[in-house]
Amino acid sequence: MPDHIDPPHATGPASETVKAHSEPNSLVFHAGWFCPFVQRVWLALEEKGIPYEYKEVNPYKKEAHFLKINPEGLVPALEHENKALYESLVLLKYLDDAFPEKQLKPTDPHEAGLVRLALQQISNVVVPAFYRYKEEGAAFVKSLQDLHTDWFRSGATWARGDTIGWVDLALAPWVVRFDLLKKHRDFKVEDVGTEFQAWAERIVDRPSVKATTSLPDDYEKVYRRYFEDTAESEVAKATRKGEWLK
Amino acid sequence: MPDHIDPPHATGPASETVKAHSEPNSLVFHAGWFCPFVQRVWLALEEKGIPYEYKEVNPYKKEAHFLKINPEGLVPALEHENKALYESLVLLKYLDDAFPEKQLKPTDPHEAGLVRLALQQISNVVVPAFYRYKEEGAAFVKSLQDLHTDWFRSGATWARGDTIGWVDLALAPWVVRFDLLKKHRDFKVEDVGTEFQAWAERIVDRPSVKATTSLPDDYEKVYRRYFEDTAESEVAKATRKGEWLK
Repeated sequence: MPDHIDPPHATGPASETVKAHSEPNSLVFHAGWFCPFVQRVWLALEEKGIPYEYKEVNPYKKEAHFLKINPEGLVPALEHENKALYESLVLLKYLDDAFPEKQLKPTDPHEAGLVRLALQQISNVVVPAFYRYKEEGAAFVKSLQDLHTDWFRSGATWARGDTIGWVDLALAPWVVRFDLLKKHRDFKVEDVGTEFQAWAERIVDRPSVKATTSLPDDYEKVYRRYFEDTAESEVAKATRKGEWLK
Repeated sequence: MPDHIDPPHATGPASETVKAHSEPNSLVFHAGWFCPFVQRVWLALEEKGIPYEYKEVNPYKKEAHFLKINPEGLVPALEHENKALYESLVLLKYLDDAFPEKQLKPTDPHEAGLVRLALQQISNVVVPAFYRYKEEGAAFVKSLQDLHTDWFRSGATWARGDTIGWVDLALAPWVVRFDLLKKHRDFKVEDVGTEFQAWAERIVDRPSVKATTSLPDDYEKVYRRYFEDTAESEVAKATRKGEWLK
């Protein structure tokens, strides 16, 4: 058993962002630099301009305090004024409730309902299909095309809108990791559709996405270890067991 | 293949509520009287006092209009000012957004986050365990005890609060259906815990729950057909396939 992730900390642009958020704050972001679910929440913090303290959790050596505030031991977790919450989508919604400026949720109730349906589709179909790409690559492409129809065909800059929102942020971390599927599998983003491809190019260029992304080679190291070579990844275990990915 | 549910319409107290909501309205509630996911939304409509038109969907003969507004063909669905949405928890949240009076969501952001975690636990653990009671009854009791610790031990009348909310309404329809597990299996609500039992007695006595509940014998007919005898139930099929229940 290893005793840390390799590398143990964010690299490249993300390491600068970590450094800029090393001072104690009433909002503590318990994170793992390599985790796409963590990146969702990190993106929301950056997009909303919320002050926070970044804390890297070593998944092999979880500190007693972290396990006390979050008995499930999962990242991402937020500790805000000494109260803890976890689960990436719960945290996205919490940040809009607790910091109402720059809402990532649409103001129109029907649009917000469509966003919640899309988040279910991303959690229940798109993300699991990403991790099963080796077995059923076509299912992953189809899952993005199904989303594409509703979300990336409106002529808008972001998913159905002119301002960035929950759907963009919930999906962005896997777009950051498309390169792994391109390099090691036969994934081509253009197979999804030209409007989706244009959105994917826009999202990886977004300052918040760049600021929370480490060097490509380092994702590759973790990816190999976590999704291909070893049995230690919670995601890999959950995927094999057919369990839900959140 | 049968061509309708037997009985085809709500009975007992619920039939009175259906009758009282038969006039056309800008909010159309596409429902199935026997479905617990439908009852969640029905409870929210009644608790919030929202005017609506109740429309029974025959799951064996779905009308063209219904399939047009809701291509997945699922109940519960809402059509509000000609825009449709579905999925019971998406609809609970929609109703709070679209009809802000009498919020079922806690006003405190941290409490709202805890509610979202509890809704995930109900969807992902409690409800699937209900449908697998025959195979693993202890898992269902444990799933309620795990919720009990967080939600039904506060001395409050409703789940963590003095006013009824999303957690109460999301769980209530299965409490209504406890009798089936009591009669046909060895389920005893007192095994969960005395505070949970007291909550369960309060919730089935709540006017909104009574007003949306049909006669016990009629659930029994549907239950037998849907969960034991036949292969037609979407829930039964999903349960066997280990798929998510929403």
